[in-house]
Amino acid sequence: MSLVRHVEYADASPEVKAVYDEIMNLRKVATVNNFWKVLANDPALLKRTWEEVRDVMAPGALDPLTKEMIYVAVSATNSCEYCTHSHTASARKQGMSDAMLAEVLAVTALANKTNRLANGYRVDVDDAFKPSFN
Amino acid sequence: MSLVRHVEYADASPEVKAVYDEIMNLRKVATVNNFWKVLANDPALLKRTWEEVRDVMAPGALDPLTKEMIYVAVSATNSCEYCTHSHTASARKQGMSDAMLAEVLAVTALANKTNRLANGYRVDVDDAFKPSFN
Amino acid sequence: MSLVRHVEYADASPEVKAVYDEIMNLRKVATVNNFWKVLANDPALLKRTWEEVRDVMAPGALDPLTKEMIYVAVSATNSCEYCTHSHTASARKQGMSDAMLAEVLAVTALANKTNRLANGYRVDVDDAFKPSFN
Amino acid sequence: MSLVRHVEYADASPEVKAVYDEIMNLRKVATVNNFWKVLANDPALLKRTWEEVRDVMAPGALDPLTKEMIYVAVSATNSCEYCTHSHTASARKQGMSDAMLAEVLAVTALANKTNRLANGYRVDVDDAFKPSFN
Amino acid sequence: MSLVRHVEYADASPEVKAVYDEIMNLRKVATVNNFWKVLANDPALLKRTWEEVRDVMAPGALDPLTKEMIYVAVSATNSCEYCTHSHTASARKQGMSDAMLAEVLAVTALANKTNRLANGYRVDVDDAFKPSFN
Amino acid sequence: MSLVRHVEYADASPEVKAVYDEIMNLRKVATVNNFWKVLANDPALLKRTWEEVRDVMAPGALDPLTKEMIYVAVSATNSCEYCTHSHTASARKQGMSDAMLAEVLAVTALANKTNRLANGYRVDVDDAFKPSFN
Repeated sequence: MSLVRHVEYADASPEVKAVYDEIMNLRKVATVNNFWKVLANDPALLKRTWEEVRDVMAPGALDPLTKEMIYVAVSATNSCEYCTHSHTASARKQGMSDAMLAEVLAVTALANKTNRLANGYRVDVDDAFKPSFN
Repeated sequence: MSLVRHVEYADASPEVKAVYDEIMNLRKVATVNNFWKVLANDPALLKRTWEEVRDVMAPGALDPLTKEMIYVAVSATNSCEYCTHSHTASARKQGMSDAMLAEVLAVTALANKTNRLANGYRVDVDDAFKPSFN
Repeated sequence: MSLVRHVEYADASPEVKAVYDEIMNLRKVATVNNFWKVLANDPALLKRTWEEVRDVMAPGALDPLTKEMIYVAVSATNSCEYCTHSHTASARKQGMSDAMLAEVLAVTALANKTNRLANGYRVDVDDAFKPSFN
Repeated sequence: MSLVRHVEYADASPEVKAVYDEIMNLRKVATVNNFWKVLANDPALLKRTWEEVRDVMAPGALDPLTKEMIYVAVSATNSCEYCTHSHTASARKQGMSDAMLAEVLAVTALANKTNRLANGYRVDVDDAFKPSFN
Repeated sequence: MSLVRHVEYADASPEVKAVYDEIMNLRKVATVNNFWKVLANDPALLKRTWEEVRDVMAPGALDPLTKEMIYVAVSATNSCEYCTHSHTASARKQGMSDAMLAEVLAVTALANKTNRLANGYRVDVDDAFKPSFN
Repeated sequence: MSLVRHVEYADASPEVKAVYDEIMNLRKVATVNNFWKVLANDPALLKRTWEEVRDVMAPGALDPLTKEMIYVAVSATNSCEYCTHSHTASARKQGMSDAMLAEVLAVTALANKTNRLANGYRVDVDDAFKPSFN
């Protein structure tokens, strides 16, 4: 149960409606997810967060599917139930198969494992890893 | 300063040497990183971890570069200094440019941000995200 | 579903009842929350934790509302569902408005984001940040 | 050692210089911190992150000092060395005394402790915490 | 609701059935837990993970109960609901009493607390802690 | 470099000296670690934290070595450099061998791995894990 009310389209201010419209147009969907309805209680937070998602997740040096899979890996690492659901769904829309999801999570799990081996043994960073420009 | 001694090749048991040889051959390098020299204090842990890295990071439904970038994202999320260095270096060897690194970290940062917005507001998971087979 | 039984007032030992009484008196409530009913299975843990909460959250160099908002920020960062609910409720009792909650979470989200940019790029700490007494 | 070069003012593009100028003017300082010099390798990331910091950390429903203390609490929770240094320094500039820092960290430590008691016992959320509008 | 289908024994491939049989035989149970039914969507992940659990959790320098209690401590720290349930149940089977669980969680909570005091104050590591072989 | 001054014995208030004396007597050491010298800037925090460490880490349903190993597991999970060093040293004093350390970290690593598989797949908790008293 969300801690604040969901702002539905019919009840939204023009400022919030403008963001909802942009989300729905860009994603070709008929409604926005609960995440946005919650953020809409703070229109500035809603607008800033949406514009960051829109710009960061757009095609660039990396394609959108790779970006969504990184999002899933981070969300699983942080134990975010909502984001794991929503970004797994987004990644599937971008073409992630079951086999790809399994590999995303296998890498995520392995990284979480070796992160603790390195931190637990306090392994010295190899000189070879240090940037050559320094 | 690592918490246990580094096992150097010259001092290694045949069991450890076999793993070192496989790492050096597969990666076409002349020595293994400190991480492996530390794990070698427990030869079973060394062998098991190496085989998992070898198999999970191999080409599959995802290519090795994508996997290395996911590794960087998780390591930055967990504040693992060693793994951030080592896997950024590995990803660069696989072809990650500065622009790609910037996008990996921009997505990682954004995911860490929205994970906390979703967790802090305890946003309800949308029915639309739930798998249709249930 | 809690992993251990809730210790209800009627069934509590005198030692546990004394803590419950102090909580109810100080907070002017008619019952204690589930958190305390669970800890009461270990009376020493209950007493030690309650006394720490009582003393740390009391007015000092910081006021109780600021302390509750810090509690919410940490609980959202750690994905603690129970504590996010309970400390958001406590902060509201202390006077946190919806606008204040939105800012607590906006700062929490931003900090989680830039923490990963700093950790992912392994940014060198500026000399200017180092304490001048060293 | 930062993983990418620091972009110094003299070498910066006009786009980056404009952000640096705004930071220096607003904060009345003669140079920007390493964090910004690192982000400047991706001018869009620099600009977006700076604008978010500028807007989120500005006076609003909460004052800037309270916001900086929340930032310190989150950074300590996430084990971010850079951000702990930089935001402790910022909070001190805003007026945080040693006694206030001690309380910020005492609350942070307590929250991290009770988060794990609640998560470890899987304590049921009390009905009383649930928002009354649902 | 799991994000992928559960692979039931009757529908499993011979490769998956072999792992299920080994789990059921070793643990003397009539069915495998949902965790394995989910991993079975990727038979290589299932086999690799099971073999690691089997080998790492077996008696060695530490007894299985100590290992299960460490598992509970880590799972509570990471806010993993599933693993907290499953490994608390496993530890109980190995002989963990309510008093032992309370102490596991009291130590876990204390460590999470002092970890943040040390990280928040950026306490210098004492020379005395550094390994003498360096 | 610690963010606040170390309070040395010679400069300490009687209240702080009393805690230092108790630590040195109980542990049979000639000085206290940096952690305590930092906390001593807030005598109430010093006293409260020391008494919790003293009581929680004392022999009870679990022996002190098991408790120290749980502390190491949590500290490695949280990326706390100071606590990983200090509690590995403490555990060694209590009798932890290299082989035991290797198993502590192998279990810690495995738990961190499966925590993310369970969280990433959002695996349903089995009914069998739920406490029978409910």
